[in-house]
This record gives sequence, structure tokens and C-alpha cells, in this order.
Amino acid sequence: MGTALRVKRNTLQILDQQLLPKQEIWLDCNGPIHMVQLIHQLKVRGAPLIGVAAALCLGLMAEKGSSTEELLFSAEQLRSARPTAVNLMVCIDRIKQVIDLSGSSKEIVACAEQIFFEDVALCDRMSDFGAQFIQSGDNVLTHCNTGGLATAGIGTALGVIRRAHEQGKKIHVYVDETRPLLQGARLTTWELSKLGIPYTLICDNMAGFLMQQRRIHKIVVGADRISPNGDFANKVGTYSLAVLARHHHIPFYVVAPYTTIDFSINSGGQIPIEERPAQEILGVEGSFGSVCWAPGESAVYNPAFDVTPSPFVTAFILDNGVFDQQKIKLGYLSNIQRS
Amino acid sequence: MGTALRVKRNTLQILDQQLLPKQEIWLDCNGPIHMVQLIHQLKVRGAPLIGVAAALCLGLMAEKGSSTEELLFSAEQLRSARPTAVNLMVCIDRIKQVIDLSGSSKEIVACAEQIFFEDVALCDRMSDFGAQFIQSGDNVLTHCNTGGLATAGIGTALGVIRRAHEQGKKIHVYVDETRPLLQGARLTTWELSKLGIPYTLICDNMAGFLMQQRRIHKIVVGADRISPNGDFANKVGTYSLAVLARHHHIPFYVVAPYTTIDFSINSGGQIPIEERPAQEILGVEGSFGSVCWAPGESAVYNPAFDVTPSPFVTAFILDNGVFDQQKIKLGYLSNIQRS
Repeated sequence: MGTALRVKRNTLQILDQQLLPKQEIWLDCNGPIHMVQLIHQLKVRGAPLIGVAAALCLGLMAEKGSSTEELLFSAEQLRSARPTAVNLMVCIDRIKQVIDLSGSSKEIVACAEQIFFEDVALCDRMSDFGAQFIQSGDNVLTHCNTGGLATAGIGTALGVIRRAHEQGKKIHVYVDETRPLLQGARLTTWELSKLGIPYTLICDNMAGFLMQQRRIHKIVVGADRISPNGDFANKVGTYSLAVLARHHHIPFYVVAPYTTIDFSINSGGQIPIEERPAQEILGVEGSFGSVCWAPGESAVYNPAFDVTPSPFVTAFILDNGVFDQQKIKLGYLSNIQRS
Repeated sequence: MGTALRVKRNTLQILDQQLLPKQEIWLDCNGPIHMVQLIHQLKVRGAPLIGVAAALCLGLMAEKGSSTEELLFSAEQLRSARPTAVNLMVCIDRIKQVIDLSGSSKEIVACAEQIFFEDVALCDRMSDFGAQFIQSGDNVLTHCNTGGLATAGIGTALGVIRRAHEQGKKIHVYVDETRPLLQGARLTTWELSKLGIPYTLICDNMAGFLMQQRRIHKIVVGADRISPNGDFANKVGTYSLAVLARHHHIPFYVVAPYTTIDFSINSGGQIPIEERPAQEILGVEGSFGSVCWAPGESAVYNPAFDVTPSPFVTAFILDNGVFDQQKIKLGYLSNIQRS
């Protein structure tokens, strides 16, 4: 199973991502209310992973004999745990469809397991497609965490990096620390260390200077929601990287499963952006400790995501294939057949 | 006197800027070796302020009867305390010239005092020039700290904001936190709170998203060294802001005293960039506490400054006047008469 999610003795366990890299602690998830909390606290995180985790949570409920009403109620609660990532909604809707059609616990469990194993397979296909764009000698910049921790498989953007490394390509990764929650500094570094892939950690505001020095050859990021026109939402800071990449003529790839496309919207402007608590900006908190460095009365702005317009994307690397600007403009993202 | 520097009973005292905003502690400076330490530790910081502080340090040495040899030796040590900011070198060279010419302690003290009061006056002139570009209703973004803490006067970029506020203009400031050392989150917020100027603290990687939303009307930053061709070095992250500003057609002003121009270089490529310790990237440390969130073995890159090429600058606001692209291209920055 994936790095951050497992089922043991009929209990869903999650690797607490807020405690990484200092502590590797697996938590038992006690049910959907607990799962919503775990998602809010970012103990479970990564757009693909939260979808899979929520599906497994409902599967286990069904297995333990929850009623259709309980299942549908919990599905709604889980569905709204994070407003920006669309994979969660897609996964929940698939489970709900099974509940509506048959209500059989066996089929609900089968659907949840299918979602899990599909995600593993999706990651492999994306990584294969993406690795062809990475050459030996490349310095690759990435933002946030998009690896085994963020998916049930080997990851999205970080999966591409891992696959290129597995293919024997000599690559080096620049890791944006990704304020405020430091997913890059805590999680991507941890994964790259385990994988033995050389990396250098930087503050988010240093990426532009590295690009100016021609020290970054490719940028790969994930996505939390993709509009069929090619606009996409991802961890805040992605848009700045995209503008900088274009200015420096650096290829900018977005790696995500097809479930990230929201066919109900027309443009990125329709993607709701989650705003998170002020404390995250005033300081930091985690298993490493807790400090507050700013005056407590400071007003803050804390969007968790930003939206990058389609023209900044060199190509979307999905499990269904690679979609460059020509394909995006021809509407290929609107017409993807779900596998 | 300025906010972060004072002389009491013949002792130079500095407000420890590493302890702000949690504690306001004045330290006695015991002499030039101590001053070099204080500058390395960023307890004394801000390109103009370190120049003034070093000059006062030498003035007090002279007053206490140090020999010419001691003074010249200490001047060299102070001169190399921070490699990027040029104001320090200019101030030291002025003192050295007095030492070489007369060696009289009275004249050395007079020169140090002159440097101090000149800086106060320079700040006022820059602020007056700059405030004309700020309109009521503006949202102004700034980076790092460039206020009363960074100078002997009311500041450079933050001085412009303060002057516009004093003129009754209704302005709001977006403050970049400025990783890794958080001068924005700790110091600029503290100054703006004291001045009663409304502000919102953001992470550095959120500035681009705010620009995309047209929520930033002007950007004002300081400078640590300006090349006569208009390239300039400033706190790391400035270059990214400049690229983002150009993409969004947002005016980008650089506010600095004339001593920031290095007439010995031809372009920004010749400006040495100080690299600082890895710990600053692996976590944070200050009076607020100390935490380390990244794996200890992580390689890091920690440039304290970056270089922004001249074409990104809407105008330099110096104490000698405003230098827009037309004037920069005509070489006006090379021909500035020192006042």
C-alpha cells in the first residue's frame, strides 16, 4: 500500500503528516468525523490521498454495517472537508453512486478498494509519461509535496522525479520550503532523503534568483483542481513560479490524475480558494515545536492555494497522456474519457 | 536619534533587532570586534544603519584615545562585516579619510556624527520624493525591513510609506514575511503597528497571487548596493517580486541613499552575494524560540540577497532625486554628485 495510508485489522491507519519528519506515527482513524478533522489538520493531505482516504473511510463504515443514511450523511461531511481539491469530491461521488445504486456493503468496499488501486496505477502512468521530459543532468524545481505521501502510489510531480531517478538519470532537485505549512521542507525533503535523490532546500523567495542564474532546467508541480480550459489551482506559490518560469523560458509541467479535472467549471476563476487560520502565518507549529514570531495583532492573508492560468503551463501530464498547449487549446482536457 | 541606535554616557547602544518584536532590549557595544559580531548576527542590520553604526563605533574609539593604527585596523575589520551592502564601505572610507588626513579624534567624531545626521536628512528627502508616487487608496507591497530600524532616520522604502501616511493618504501595506530571517514578519509589522499604519502580513510566495487579483498597486523596496547601470542588490526575494511586478504592470520603486551606489562596478553581476548559514533555512531561531523542521542532513542554498536588473525598476528614489528609466539609460546614476 501507499506510504501514508494503510488498513490494519479493519482499521484505517494514516501516517500523521504533521509530525513528519521528526516523528513517524501512524494514527487509527475512528470514522468520518475523525477523518474530516485529520484532513483539516493536514495530518492527511495531498489532493489524491485525501480522496482515497475518504473513500476507504466510507468503505470501512459500510463493512462495519453502517446504514445507507449514515453513509450518505458521512459522505457529505467528507466531501466538504477541503473546498479546493476536486479529487476528494470525485471519489466521494463514485462511492455515493454505488450506495445509491445497490447499497451493498460488499460493492461499496470494492469501489473504495478500486479507487485505491486505481490511484496507484494512475501514479505509475503519470510518472512514466512525465519522466520522458526529464534529462540526465537536469536540476528540477518542485513545490509543496506531491510524492508517495500525497497519493496512494509513488506520487504525481515527485513521482515523475522518482521515475526519472529510477531510470538512472542523474538529477538534482531544488525543493521550495512551501510556507506556511512547510510541506517542501518537511515532507519532500524526507521523501527525497529516503529515495536517495540529491536535493537542495530553498526558501520560496529564492526560486527566482536560481532561475536567473540558469540553475533550474524544469519545474514540476501537482494540481488540486484543473479547469477544462487549462487553468489550475495548486498550493499557494505555484502561480509565482509559473510567471517566473515563463520569464526565464523554463518548461513548467503540471502532473495530476484525471480526477483533478473539474468538468463542471469553465475557468480557474470558478475554483474556490480555501483560506486557513492566521496562526499559520504568524509563526509555525508542528512536532518540531511551536513558535510565533509576528506581533499577535497582525492582520494576515492565508490562501492555501492559488490559480495559474492555462497559458503558463508547458504541458499537463495526466495518466491519460500528455496535454501540451496545442491540445489544451483544442479542448482535449474537456474530452478526456475517464478510464 | 534613530530608533535602533543611540549613544548614552559615551557608549554606543543598539536595539537588538534579533529580539524584536518579542523583546525590546538595548545592548552596549563594547567596540569594533563586538560590532562585527552584532552585524554578523543581524542584531544590527539594514544597509544604511550598519554604515552609521560602524562610523559611530570608530568615532567613540577615537574619542576614547585609540591610536591611528588601532583605528585603521578596526576600520578594515568593520568594512568587511557584510560583503553586499556598500553603504558600510562608503561610511568607513569617509572615516578612514579623516584618519589619514588629520588623525584628530575631534574630527573623526565630527565625521561620524555628520554621517549619522546626514542619514537622518537623507531619509527625509527620500521619503518626500517617494511619497508623491503613493496615492490615497493604494495597497503597497514591501519586502524585508527598510524603516526606522534599518536607518538612522525614518527609513528608505518604509520611510516613503510612513511619509505618505503622515500626509493623510489612506494606504494599506502588504508585508512580505521575508524568509529566512523574517524581517518583514518581525520588524516591519512592529514598526507599522507602532505607526498605526494598517497592514496585512503574507508569506513571500503569496505576493504573486495578490498581484494577479489586482490587490497591489505599488511595490517599494530598499537596496543594499546599486550599480551605476541601474542593476541593484537587495534582500533575497526582491528579484522575484520585480519579475512579478513587471508581468502585472505594477510600478516598482527602489528607495535608497546615494551611498548605496557603487561607482566602482559596471553591472549587478559584479556584486558579491553573501551566503549565510544552513540553520537559517532548516528552521527559525530568535527571541520567540528556536525550531528546526527540516531533516538535519538537508543541503541548502541560502543567499542573503539577489540582484535585480535595471529594466525592472520603475524608478530609483534617492535623496538626490528620482531616477526613472530614461534617466538611468542616460547614465544619471553614474554622475550623481555626492551632497
